Amino acid sequence: MSASHDPQRREALIRGLGEILPPDAVLYEHEDLRPYECDGLSAYRRLPLAVALPSTRAQVAAILRLCHRLAVPVVARGAGTGLSGGALPLTDGLLLSLARLNRILAIDPTARIARVEPGVRNLAVSEAARPYGLYYAPDPSSQIACTIGGNVAENAGGVHCLKYGLTVHNVLRLTVLTVEGEELVFGSEALDAPGYDLLALTIGSEGLLGVVVEASLRLLPLPERQQVVLAAFDEVGRAAAAVGAIIAAGIVPAGLEMMDNLAIRAAEDYVHAGYPVEAAAILLVELDGTNAEVSEQVMQVRELLLACGATEVRTARDEAERELMWKGRKAAFPAVGRISPDYYCMDGTIPRGRLPEVLAGIAALSREYGLPVANVFHAGDGNLHPLILYDANRPGELERTEELGRKILELCVAAGGTVTGEHGVGVEKLDAMCVQFTAPELARFHAVKHAFDPAGLLNPGKAVPSLARCAEFGAMHVHRGQLRHAELPRF
Amino acid sequence: MSASHDPQRREALIRGLGEILPPDAVLYEHEDLRPYECDGLSAYRRLPLAVALPSTRAQVAAILRLCHRLAVPVVARGAGTGLSGGALPLTDGLLLSLARLNRILAIDPTARIARVEPGVRNLAVSEAARPYGLYYAPDPSSQIACTIGGNVAENAGGVHCLKYGLTVHNVLRLTVLTVEGEELVFGSEALDAPGYDLLALTIGSEGLLGVVVEASLRLLPLPERQQVVLAAFDEVGRAAAAVGAIIAAGIVPAGLEMMDNLAIRAAEDYVHAGYPVEAAAILLVELDGTNAEVSEQVMQVRELLLACGATEVRTARDEAERELMWKGRKAAFPAVGRISPDYYCMDGTIPRGRLPEVLAGIAALSREYGLPVANVFHAGDGNLHPLILYDANRPGELERTEELGRKILELCVAAGGTVTGEHGVGVEKLDAMCVQFTAPELARFHAVKHAFDPAGLLNPGKAVPSLARCAEFGAMHVHRGQLRHAELPRF
Repeated sequence: MSASHDPQRREALIRGLGEILPPDAVLYEHEDLRPYECDGLSAYRRLPLAVALPSTRAQVAAILRLCHRLAVPVVARGAGTGLSGGALPLTDGLLLSLARLNRILAIDPTARIARVEPGVRNLAVSEAARPYGLYYAPDPSSQIACTIGGNVAENAGGVHCLKYGLTVHNVLRLTVLTVEGEELVFGSEALDAPGYDLLALTIGSEGLLGVVVEASLRLLPLPERQQVVLAAFDEVGRAAAAVGAIIAAGIVPAGLEMMDNLAIRAAEDYVHAGYPVEAAAILLVELDGTNAEVSEQVMQVRELLLACGATEVRTARDEAERELMWKGRKAAFPAVGRISPDYYCMDGTIPRGRLPEVLAGIAALSREYGLPVANVFHAGDGNLHPLILYDANRPGELERTEELGRKILELCVAAGGTVTGEHGVGVEKLDAMCVQFTAPELARFHAVKHAFDPAGLLNPGKAVPSLARCAEFGAMHVHRGQLRHAELPRF
Repeated sequence: MSASHDPQRREALIRGLGEILPPDAVLYEHEDLRPYECDGLSAYRRLPLAVALPSTRAQVAAILRLCHRLAVPVVARGAGTGLSGGALPLTDGLLLSLARLNRILAIDPTARIARVEPGVRNLAVSEAARPYGLYYAPDPSSQIACTIGGNVAENAGGVHCLKYGLTVHNVLRLTVLTVEGEELVFGSEALDAPGYDLLALTIGSEGLLGVVVEASLRLLPLPERQQVVLAAFDEVGRAAAAVGAIIAAGIVPAGLEMMDNLAIRAAEDYVHAGYPVEAAAILLVELDGTNAEVSEQVMQVRELLLACGATEVRTARDEAERELMWKGRKAAFPAVGRISPDYYCMDGTIPRGRLPEVLAGIAALSREYGLPVANVFHAGDGNLHPLILYDANRPGELERTEELGRKILELCVAAGGTVTGEHGVGVEKLDAMCVQFTAPELARFHAVKHAFDPAGLLNPGKAVPSLARCAEFGAMHVHRGQLRHAELPRF
């Protein structure tokens, strides 16, 4: 019998939490639980048994020990901005909010390290570092709200991860509590740590291995100068080819984003960024560094873009225009939300060189399913965010949308890519994981989980599908090895 | 009874290998085994039961299945240049040489990826990539000989890892065989892979989790220009402070190396690099990038060095002088070997900002033990390589040297650092791991090992000490948490 149907266990949990936390830090009434019923993937909603809001590491450890003793599953949550349902509660589980562990413990400008608690917001780190001329590079678009703990759980990226890497490249050390409430330190503020790389293993593990209570983050010096170049193309394929040409020239832009016509029009209507609305695609190329470096690279990039057939190349004249150019990109998702009753945001990655053919494949699938797809994405990383426009009120359209989404992800895997770039697997992409991995690979994932959480109490049912589920899904045969080389769709 | 004393098992192994491999690929006679008795840490020597020299992935899988069936331990080996005994054979085990899996499978200049077998030499990757204007960044000083498989096992670094990262930052995908001979793929040639980061977990795991049979490596464009600045200081502390000043200014040199007076003199006597032999320390600062960027940074770095009290700052006039400046640094280890009967090379890391005090601490320990210590190291990374000069023929001096080495590593841990930067743990630093980690952390390492190799057949006895060994060593109490804050030695 699960705890949700076991009033005694629920009562024991609430009583135990009451001994650890002050009354305002334990929620269990229906109306108090409602704000926690979903994360950014609001299609999935569930109420947990209770919500705990600890303020200290010792309280978190005590809560974990309590849940371990009572065999109550635990879902940790930061700001709940995740897009794959990783923080979706369990009806028989505790929702452990880390939002009150929100202290910036230290900013060390010499070592260029910030030590923070998991509930600190991403942007708050850069704000605290700014007086020292430093910042924290990973910048997911939810950075005003999302927390470092959530960023670690999902290995968050952002516009700048092409040059500055994902969360895994910018976290030096983590203090993690095991499900037994035991404190472990992974990584080091020095160059490298001996032993297995449990730091990297924890980052992106979606709350299945432990609960982060402290993180040491690498800070970078604020660049002397930032400049953005906008290029318009009358064919998507040419824009995609230009991405490859820039990278092949040895330039690593701070950001390299692409928007297709549907996304351009939606954004322009919404924020009036001055985008060329007739263009089939635009690229936004951000360059940063020293004055000399940026000047030189802007010239190089302009030449490359023109050589690749850009119909217009525009460099921001001043900081205001640069911000306006980015404003359109940043507003693209809500802008698409204005032109369609609903949209479904995908998150696949592909090797950069395959961009032209995969974009053509997505267009063909869009026509086949009769559903418009807007593309707004991190082109330099090969991290696609196709937005499928649909209307949930039309019978069967959600199902067709989900099927189209799955086809798009299979296309990514077939091109040597992956089913998620930066949004995580959560509950959303469990089936897609069956496409991505072989049974022996999934078995190894489960063995690693078992090494950290033998009872399976941390965020169960997320991130890694069971072998039974994959067998049922029937997708184990579309393994990389076969699909990629033999069954790659032609278009 | 171990296999070394079990003639039947030895016979079954050799017979089984004979069915998988041609006769010249199975060695078992005493004189044939001798070349494999040690790696670069020649103080430890052992003969394996047999040596297998497969040429294909299928042979490696068959060998692993055979060993798994016979319960024979397996030690994988690349070029045997490792410095911590990671490839030391087991007397009851098979030595699995991957030297004949040495094919470069593909160089993809658009994706900037090299796909190679594990026996490919590090330098051979850059040589194959050069026609495309690309190179592979990690450059351990053994790069002429050491192999990619060994680099992965040890998470190798090198002079350039300050700017370009360790092996873990430059490997995109690995194909790994489990001890059961099962093939798994970790990572992706695209941006990110979902699931736990088993790619990073494998890198640096010292052959304990699986056997790498293929690696996809990130290639970088050859920089347009490289320049080196040499600065002399009359105090080691000032040179150390200058390291911090350069980094604090937001400059990331391609290399930032320090040598102290003993190392300078030894190198100068040996290769006549033109070093200032009266200097207490020199820094070598390498800058690379575009012409404009390097010119600007050379000026900035010169100013910073002079402001930090450098008595002389010299920029290489031409490529010949640049190479000469580096020649001295690269020859420093053998140069020290010329002035002392024996030397013991340490490999600890510390946070960069602690350099002045830790170098002072090493000098104090050197005086206390009456043993000279030369320092030649990756200052920018805080990766120390103190060389303890001793004479193994003097009774007790090796023991005193080892004790001094241990004290130096404890000093590194006390300063928030680690017991190994890039040489690995192997058999050499098992006791030091007891200083570095708590019992619960080591327990987690063992659980991860169990997830991959439940029978403990892959490189047993290396990298992670047993809890029993640490209890015996008695060092579990000097845990980071206590030592760092409460018992940090004063000097």
